[in-house]
This record gives sequence, C-alpha cells and structure tokens, in this order.
Amino acid sequence: MPADFNRIRIVLVATSHPGNVGAAARAMLTMGLSRLVLVAPKRFPDPAATAMASGATEVLEGARIVGSLDEALVGCVLTIGLSARPREFAGRVLPVRAAAGEALAHSGRGDVGIVFGSEMSGLSNPELARCQLVATIAANPAYGSLNLAAAVQIVAYELRVAAMGDAVWRAPRFPPARHDEVEALFVHGEKTLTAMRFLNPERPKRLLPRLRRLFARAGLEKEEVNILRGILSRIDAMIVRGPWR
Amino acid sequence: MPADFNRIRIVLVATSHPGNVGAAARAMLTMGLSRLVLVAPKRFPDPAATAMASGATEVLEGARIVGSLDEALVGCVLTIGLSARPREFAGRVLPVRAAAGEALAHSGRGDVGIVFGSEMSGLSNPELARCQLVATIAANPAYGSLNLAAAVQIVAYELRVAAMGDAVWRAPRFPPARHDEVEALFVHGEKTLTAMRFLNPERPKRLLPRLRRLFARAGLEKEEVNILRGILSRIDAMIVRGPWR
Repeated sequence: MPADFNRIRIVLVATSHPGNVGAAARAMLTMGLSRLVLVAPKRFPDPAATAMASGATEVLEGARIVGSLDEALVGCVLTIGLSARPREFAGRVLPVRAAAGEALAHSGRGDVGIVFGSEMSGLSNPELARCQLVATIAANPAYGSLNLAAAVQIVAYELRVAAMGDAVWRAPRFPPARHDEVEALFVHGEKTLTAMRFLNPERPKRLLPRLRRLFARAGLEKEEVNILRGILSRIDAMIVRGPWR
Repeated sequence: MPADFNRIRIVLVATSHPGNVGAAARAMLTMGLSRLVLVAPKRFPDPAATAMASGATEVLEGARIVGSLDEALVGCVLTIGLSARPREFAGRVLPVRAAAGEALAHSGRGDVGIVFGSEMSGLSNPELARCQLVATIAANPAYGSLNLAAAVQIVAYELRVAAMGDAVWRAPRFPPARHDEVEALFVHGEKTLTAMRFLNPERPKRLLPRLRRLFARAGLEKEEVNILRGILSRIDAMIVRGPWR
C-alpha cells in the first residue's frame, strides 16, 4: 500500500443507507485506502454496513464520525469534492483521473480530503464551496446515476493507478523460440505442406507469407515450436505409412 | 453514447446473486453500455436484480440469457476476460485501461465480448482460455476482493474514458480581468496597504511579490477585481472618515 495513502481521507457526507457505507469501505480497501470519515451519517454503525463491507470491516471500525464537513476536513492541505452536475460557482474542475494525480501530489505534504455527497443529491453548493478542487467522473449524460460506492470505487481505483501504475500481474514468461528454430519450423512446414499437396511450389500464392505473418504476430515460444514440429512429423509419418499405422 | 458501444457485450458468467446482476446493469448504463449477456445465471430474472438496477431496468430487460460462454461470444471479433489472479497459461495480459483501448479499437470491426467470472471464483482456466486478451484491474494485493458490479463499473468507466475522453463538464467561464485592470488593482492595493501602515514602502519586504504570485495563480476574473477594488475603496474611506461613518 503506498505510504501516502495514509494521508487520504475519504469523506462521506450525510449518507442515508448504511449498506452504501459498507460497500464504500470495501471499494476503498480493494484499492488500499483505509481512512474513512463519516459526516453525520443517518445510521451508523449498522449491521447492513458490516454485511456490505464483506471483510473490509477494519475500515468501518476505524471510521471517524463527525458532525460537520469542516470538522472532517480539519488539517487537510487539499480538499476535493465530487460532483456529477455542473455548478455555477465551481472553481477548478478536473476529471477524476487528473484529480487523483493532484491528490497524490499533495499527499506528500499533508492530508487530502476527498468528499462525496449524499446518495440522493450529492454535495450541496455550500459543501462544494469548501473544496478547493471539484472532481467529476465521466458518465452517460442520459443516466449518470452512479451508486455512491461505485463512485468511491472509481476514485479509489484512479488513486491506485496514479500511485502504483496499473500493471498488477504479468503473464508468465515461457522461453521464446530462437530465430533459427523458427526458421527450421518454416522449412519443415513448407516441405510437409508440399508433400500434403496443400502447397504447390509452382504456384505458392501467398500461403507461406501469411503463415509467417501469423506466427510472427504470435511470437512463438520454444515449446510451441516443438509442438508444431511434432504435428508436422506426425503428418510426415502419415504420408509415408498411411494414417492407420 | 458512442456508436461503437453497441458493439460491446458485457458477459457475466454463472452469477449467484441477482442483486449483483442488477448493480452491474446500473454500472453499465452509467457509462453508456447496454448489451448484457448472462451465461447460466443462478437466479434471473429476479426482483433483487430489478431493485439493484435502480432505473437501469432497460439493460436487464434487454439482457440475453445463454447456456454457455461460447454461445455468449458467438460473432465476437475480440474477447477479453477479467482476472485478478495470475494464471499460468494466460496469453496477453493488459491493465484494464489498455484493454479498454483495445476493445474500442476492435469495436469498429465487430462485436467485442468482455467476460466476468462468478462472484466466488472468477473465471475458470478453461473459460479464460477462450478469451484472446486477459484484463486485470489494479488492486490491493492484501485485499483484492472487488465486488462484481464494482469491477464492471471500472471496466465501463475505462471504456467511456477511452471513447469520449474524461472531461464531462466544465466550470462556467466568467470574463477574465485584463492585464491593465489587474495592474490598476495592484497600484490601488499598494496605496491602500501603505495608508493602512501595513506596508512600509521603505522596507516593503516581499509582501507585494507574494500578493502578485497569489493572484497570478488564481487567474483573476473581471468581477473579482471589482470586488477587491471595492474592498480597498471601503478601507480608503475608513481611513479618511473613520470606520463609524
């Protein structure tokens, strides 16, 4: 978990449904965030929150409950409010990707508060005016109704990608075939395809260039060359002795 | 909604909980996706799916239910499977951001299937082997347990950003102050601060450069200059006549 993630507070204002708080906690922890601040939640703690947190109960148990947004943001050097709707007096508005970058950049110098409004109406204008930056999530203009936990998930994901890059696991690497092994395969293949009377060396058309292109794109591994040569050898044997042996 | 989004199928394999199907439908529609394919869902249709879809019922009603993954992917020119866990025989593995770019690029040429495994265990190895690409979402290695709908939300979000860019609304633009208006403000401010005996012209220190820096960073609007000049004029009047007038 990036060290600076301890500097990031996820602030949920006036949540109505404890299930959403639990789901938000799970979304946070999947990306490595754990500091949750609840401003005047309607119901919390609540069994529905714990159920939806699904193992991320440590985030719920560590949640701070405060009475006002200002209290939630005490000590923050950067405050970011989420808003789906355009607001007349919004200051700097950034896509959430860029806002995540700003949050990370500031987290080296102090706490960063990222503020989400209530499920029904989002942040009020006075609440948003307390935030230095407004972040907005790209959404369908005809149906922009992201669930609260879904919005938290996207923000947390963007923070993680900003902090760590987004490659998490790589496919295992098997030893690649060497050039000469690949060329020997093509020599073998051409011979077998000719013997099969699939390839007419007098009129080869574009068969071999297309096969070369296919295997070049695939990037053959050593073991794959062995398998393909094995198939060719089996065909060779069938041609000599017949397929019934 | 980008035209090519009609080419993208979200395929959910063997879902156990209908609520997750509903939440996934909502996540899709928030980003403009609407083609949902369910492979052998345990319970569907179901009131819990409709409840969690929260207005995205059109996606549920249009969902296609099939018996096998192959059936779900008939006609697809690109198939992408999501996997959180490393797999020995995975082919090309991409972060979900890059995979979204590939999906968009291919969607101009035919359907693209994006496949999510069941809630408990994700895609099986044979299921994943049917996908040309593996996409993986950056997550906390100690707690990578994304909810199914949360994973769909991130994928749908990345598709939308890949298709449309991520700026959705801009702060309204108010007329900016002209250079000469800003300079007149600084002249006025220097005079007033001197009259207030806050600024000593003999020893100005760095007060004015710091104020210039602050306002340069803010990028003053015409109306803001007027407000600041109004404040200065009020101070001027207080100095001449006393604050009690």
